[in-house]
Amino acid sequence: MNTLSHSAARVLDTLRSKRPLILSLTNNVVQNITANMLLATGGVPVMLTHSDEIRDLLHSCANGMLINVGTLSEQQAQTMLTAVKDAREAGIPWVLDPVAVGLLQYRTAICQELLQTPPAMIRGNASEIIALAGAEGALCRGVESSAESKAAVAAAQALARRTGAAVLVTGETDYATDGTTTIACHNGDEIMTRVTGVGCAMGALAAACLASADTPLQAAVATAAILGIAGERAAARAPRPGSFAAELLDTLDALTPDDIALSARLEMVEE
Amino acid sequence: MNTLSHSAARVLDTLRSKRPLILSLTNNVVQNITANMLLATGGVPVMLTHSDEIRDLLHSCANGMLINVGTLSEQQAQTMLTAVKDAREAGIPWVLDPVAVGLLQYRTAICQELLQTPPAMIRGNASEIIALAGAEGALCRGVESSAESKAAVAAAQALARRTGAAVLVTGETDYATDGTTTIACHNGDEIMTRVTGVGCAMGALAAACLASADTPLQAAVATAAILGIAGERAAARAPRPGSFAAELLDTLDALTPDDIALSARLEMVEE
Amino acid sequence: MNTLSHSAARVLDTLRSKRPLILSLTNNVVQNITANMLLATGGVPVMLTHSDEIRDLLHSCANGMLINVGTLSEQQAQTMLTAVKDAREAGIPWVLDPVAVGLLQYRTAICQELLQTPPAMIRGNASEIIALAGAEGALCRGVESSAESKAAVAAAQALARRTGAAVLVTGETDYATDGTTTIACHNGDEIMTRVTGVGCAMGALAAACLASADTPLQAAVATAAILGIAGERAAARAPRPGSFAAELLDTLDALTPDDIALSARLEMVEE
Repeated sequence: MNTLSHSAARVLDTLRSKRPLILSLTNNVVQNITANMLLATGGVPVMLTHSDEIRDLLHSCANGMLINVGTLSEQQAQTMLTAVKDAREAGIPWVLDPVAVGLLQYRTAICQELLQTPPAMIRGNASEIIALAGAEGALCRGVESSAESKAAVAAAQALARRTGAAVLVTGETDYATDGTTTIACHNGDEIMTRVTGVGCAMGALAAACLASADTPLQAAVATAAILGIAGERAAARAPRPGSFAAELLDTLDALTPDDIALSARLEMVEE
Repeated sequence: MNTLSHSAARVLDTLRSKRPLILSLTNNVVQNITANMLLATGGVPVMLTHSDEIRDLLHSCANGMLINVGTLSEQQAQTMLTAVKDAREAGIPWVLDPVAVGLLQYRTAICQELLQTPPAMIRGNASEIIALAGAEGALCRGVESSAESKAAVAAAQALARRTGAAVLVTGETDYATDGTTTIACHNGDEIMTRVTGVGCAMGALAAACLASADTPLQAAVATAAILGIAGERAAARAPRPGSFAAELLDTLDALTPDDIALSARLEMVEE
Repeated sequence: MNTLSHSAARVLDTLRSKRPLILSLTNNVVQNITANMLLATGGVPVMLTHSDEIRDLLHSCANGMLINVGTLSEQQAQTMLTAVKDAREAGIPWVLDPVAVGLLQYRTAICQELLQTPPAMIRGNASEIIALAGAEGALCRGVESSAESKAAVAAAQALARRTGAAVLVTGETDYATDGTTTIACHNGDEIMTRVTGVGCAMGALAAACLASADTPLQAAVATAAILGIAGERAAARAPRPGSFAAELLDTLDALTPDDIALSARLEMVEE
């Protein structure tokens, strides 16, 4: 137990009592698991399509928003560009998940345009963070990363400084940074990459943590710890992907702040 | 065992032998669980997008239709407005699920426009039914209800009288009414609200029951009883949301008319 | 064990080491299970919406593509018509799943237009293959077949000869043909038809097998054997649809080429 773990535990505690309502504008493949993972963790999921309704919700009861560009269309891009401006106007923090940025040009341009309205957090794998930071293009494995997360730490720090967002690079080790402080999270299990949407749903969980934390960096660390601990516990009970997906929801549902305080493996990354 | 329970049991029996084909125009988040719950109960699910194909199906082999406005877009709204007219022309009963009506203006207007072509059933939580009946706006919990179902009974009765539809208010207790007779169903379990899409899929099950019942009220009661009994049995075996979702499908698949006759907890509500 | 079984086993072996990246343009209902079944078998799933991004991916790292018309819209039809031309230009083999063709006119016309750019494989149930071959219209059970697969063998052979594609007719027995050689696969279990998307996801698996086989016919046979064996093994452990869906993914994840060689029930069909 240390200060970092207690801080992450506190975020889960607040999330459970506050029950933040999170609007997810996300890709078609993962909407169901996104809603279910958010519910199991303690948030309230909402998905909407119409810009007027998105504005209504952001100006009434939303506590956070996720923008995930996984199956971006021109219409959805316009909706997202409007939504981030509405979120800023309403004071609602938002998370960007730049799926496959660097590999596909259209979304790469749209993500740079979205970044002109600063998000509170950016979550991606190493390839995506490196590409978004402008360092180099991602190699070709679709939505999978071709680089280890460690290799993206410098890019993540630069991106955090440029955008003002906390950046969460996910991989075997997750790294959360605000550009000044960088924290590694060693929780998690490889099987989490073999169930569609666990990474994407992490973005919605990140938005719920933002609504429950003192700082974006604290939210990013909590996101990594909560999902990582749930993932490794679920993998121990269900090491195959079909049963793992159900077990992950069960485990998130049962997870307590004490579990986080006890099991989080967090450490400061020295320069 | 009483007459109400036997009536609900008979609906399931007919549903199982008739295998009604149900067209669901529903939100993006729940299409998979909607299709799977319908299949497990004995219906045949179809989802379509193109208005011409919707008309083809309504005029050929559809037995019922669900309209759920959860992630309504302008294009989908136009498709739905056309679809309900096609359904009326083809004599196909349809169910309206007015998700989050009262909270979001665009869909509230569209639902009132949809109601000009009367549905056979309306299913919603208390907030939605109160808002649709024009009584007062819903409070802010996204797709969750901010009111207890009991509080919506008068609004449900008024809505049933105005539209000619049976109204099913779901909550800890479900209430089904045709404006004259009101029946409470005490089956179900709280965990059903913690899996995305169970409520939405109930709308497709309602359409299948409409195609298998003598009256919309009987269909509404059967819908509440079938899903409520399956839900409480599944919850007893799988009290966490991930495993519950799978167990609910298994339980629906195994459910017999005798189970309904034995376990339904239905009662007439006195004025 | 025979030559056919060993050939199918070799396809799984290659698929596991090659990890083909499969772009699925498919219907809204099944995107999640499609991605998860592909991941469990060893492929890498990608779903996209924007034509420019589809072209980017086909010209960079895609190894195969699925076109499934289950919830076709006008916009998606245009995207698909462009995508198959891009795939031909890029030399990427593609699979057509003509869901409900013959029953619904719009998609029937679009599928005939798609066929002008020849796919490497067509996968459908008996009704769909008969309708696509122009033999007669499908009867009315939505996405279910009204004919037995055996009845579609002649139509499948004619369709294969006309298009140059391997045709895979799925049903209680699956038939794969290139118009000259026809092979029956007796693996599988009836419960596979009671989980939404298993058949549709088979199309993505077929694309992954195409990328891992010497010929389209070999890929079609391997597709039927891999999914059939996984399905019958999963059904033995989980005979109800909710738990079956998870068990199917677990079983695919654990399946080895030796399992295919041992359990495939394949035979040549004599004229």
